[in-house]
Amino acid sequence: MTGQSTYPSASAIVVGGSIGGLTTALLLRDLGFHVDVFERTASPLDGRGSGIVLQPDTVRWFTERSSQDLADLHTATAYVQYLDPSGAVVHREPALWTYTSWGTFYRALLADFGTEHYHYGEFASGFDQDADSVTVRFVSGRTASADLVVFADGITSPAREYFDPEAKLAYSGYVGWRGTVALGSLDPATQEVLRDSITYTVIPHSHITMYPIPGEQSLDEADRLMNYVWYRNVPAGPQLSELLTDKRGFTGSVSVHPGQVQDRFVDELRAAARAQLAPAVADVVVATEQPYLQVLSDVRSSRMALGRAALIGDAACASRPHAAAGTAKAAADAWALAEALSTASGDIVSALAKWEPAQLQLSDSLLRRVVDMGERSQFRNTWTPGDPDLRFGLYGPGL
Amino acid sequence: MTGQSTYPSASAIVVGGSIGGLTTALLLRDLGFHVDVFERTASPLDGRGSGIVLQPDTVRWFTERSSQDLADLHTATAYVQYLDPSGAVVHREPALWTYTSWGTFYRALLADFGTEHYHYGEFASGFDQDADSVTVRFVSGRTASADLVVFADGITSPAREYFDPEAKLAYSGYVGWRGTVALGSLDPATQEVLRDSITYTVIPHSHITMYPIPGEQSLDEADRLMNYVWYRNVPAGPQLSELLTDKRGFTGSVSVHPGQVQDRFVDELRAAARAQLAPAVADVVVATEQPYLQVLSDVRSSRMALGRAALIGDAACASRPHAAAGTAKAAADAWALAEALSTASGDIVSALAKWEPAQLQLSDSLLRRVVDMGERSQFRNTWTPGDPDLRFGLYGPGL
Repeated sequence: MTGQSTYPSASAIVVGGSIGGLTTALLLRDLGFHVDVFERTASPLDGRGSGIVLQPDTVRWFTERSSQDLADLHTATAYVQYLDPSGAVVHREPALWTYTSWGTFYRALLADFGTEHYHYGEFASGFDQDADSVTVRFVSGRTASADLVVFADGITSPAREYFDPEAKLAYSGYVGWRGTVALGSLDPATQEVLRDSITYTVIPHSHITMYPIPGEQSLDEADRLMNYVWYRNVPAGPQLSELLTDKRGFTGSVSVHPGQVQDRFVDELRAAARAQLAPAVADVVVATEQPYLQVLSDVRSSRMALGRAALIGDAACASRPHAAAGTAKAAADAWALAEALSTASGDIVSALAKWEPAQLQLSDSLLRRVVDMGERSQFRNTWTPGDPDLRFGLYGPGL
Repeated sequence: MTGQSTYPSASAIVVGGSIGGLTTALLLRDLGFHVDVFERTASPLDGRGSGIVLQPDTVRWFTERSSQDLADLHTATAYVQYLDPSGAVVHREPALWTYTSWGTFYRALLADFGTEHYHYGEFASGFDQDADSVTVRFVSGRTASADLVVFADGITSPAREYFDPEAKLAYSGYVGWRGTVALGSLDPATQEVLRDSITYTVIPHSHITMYPIPGEQSLDEADRLMNYVWYRNVPAGPQLSELLTDKRGFTGSVSVHPGQVQDRFVDELRAAARAQLAPAVADVVVATEQPYLQVLSDVRSSRMALGRAALIGDAACASRPHAAAGTAKAAADAWALAEALSTASGDIVSALAKWEPAQLQLSDSLLRRVVDMGERSQFRNTWTPGDPDLRFGLYGPGL
């Protein structure tokens, strides 16, 4: 392992035990840190079926360090296609992309990290540091101290406010309707249209994209799920507030979970899908039992390093998923952090300061690109089928 | 009853079944409306023990219309006193004030309205109207239409955004720590100090006020509860965010409920009370099993009437409780609305338009006064014991 002996007696806390946090924890452990991961959810999260497009940074743990075979974790498609609302193919090109599901990938990373130092049900609400250590406070009453803390706790990270009090979520003007449907449950003709492609339908001020991801049980085609995001404009104000008010009367700031979206909005979604989207694409949306909502907002902290504390992934910078690069960005932050630490001769504060500028720049460039992609789709109506500038990628279109 | 025949075939929806909503519903029913009340909570709210200082508008239903005896609903004290941190009396004057508890008053109003048209567990998330009626949408999937809707759904009212999209909560810079303690559970000497007064302790950038309210069982002195609000400055930013993050990891925007405040903050509260407040006053704070938090913010809608929809009470304008006039304001809005309707010859839209200006003015004047009172206490250190400008009152100090 790289730098095994660099931090033999140092300790690290990782706040947030999802993909970015687990990747960080694994890399820090390889550097010799004693690592504890604190995850706010109370139990393992098998149910989260949403899809992840695999990018090189996302899978780097498996290609370079893990004994697990990456081939066991993903599905693939051979084409990118655009269907117009009638169902006609308006663009189709060969392009290999691979996908995983959040649950499949999470379980693989957790298998490598183990559960002994993975703590469920711990929500970090604040931290302090002095010259020698950092102490994280949890709402359970627990505190934990270490030489390094990495916050990988997502778009709602309470830690971000310590790094940049001015970094607030700015609503994009549209939401993502998301869902998954068993591919095998669809009409055979629909399955044939969708099974080997990323499929888009572009309509005025909107588009939808979908692709097949692994099911929770296996990679078999029989278990696969069609996973989609449909981007739809909703003006800020009462209309947005009502859409985000769930069946219990709670108003989501970043999402409304499966099963919690008000029935009237699910009914409207299904009717709109049938009226506006290609028939095969509409089939998937209409068949979704519990579609859910992601509020698309932009936020970027102007700092990612603060003494012995680092902010990574969506906690540091989150935006719209058009580049399919959010998970890759978190992994890239983690790898760069590990590399900075491995060459810092044990000086954590210097390593973080050295690590920060390139990651801020990467955040900034990704954010600008996905904002432009979103504006093209939702407001300028220039999302042109086949335009190479619209390809997925962390470092640039297709990169 | 006044104007019994004015609206014999009209219908009204009241959203929010707390004190302001029930007062409105009773007055509308007296005008002939068929009234339905929709309350978001799922069951009767016996547990809410917080205190209400009675003002003439608050009790007007009981003094003018109800067969219930107001004397059965309140306690009273004969003095206002200021104790310094040593416990010495620095000011004391005779001043009769009466108090109820939220639960006592709520149950009395509900007894008059009845439960047949009082619907629990219905959260209104939006509404629309045309020339003839207004339709309210609930997250349950239910809709309800009527000739008039009154939103009395409190400081977090989703309806406010329809009336004034710019009306946002503005944090005051301080929070209210609240709680109740059985008077009889306190040291006898402490009981004697507190039992017949409103008691204040003023310290730099802060003050606390407390008074005895009815218990949940009876008005007997043996059942009484000491009820308090301690105003403490907390800067916006990570410190406030952490304080408002509850034991489950949820962050309150307007309150953190009893039992949900993180233990470390309750511990700090008790230690600070002992160190900073008069001994008898500190006894109450220290003895509170589940102190809770109210975030003090100011918000005022620039409109209260929108066609057939009215916004009243905290839904329209909410601020700091220094004048003890929030409940009175809601009741005053309701009475003025009923009076406007009773002289409008059945024209609801005109009645609301005619009702609005004076209530906006009342909101504005109350808001300015309580903001000034709060600034005097928390930032200017000019909350002078005995200053008549600091008296409770909806229309002015002591009025």
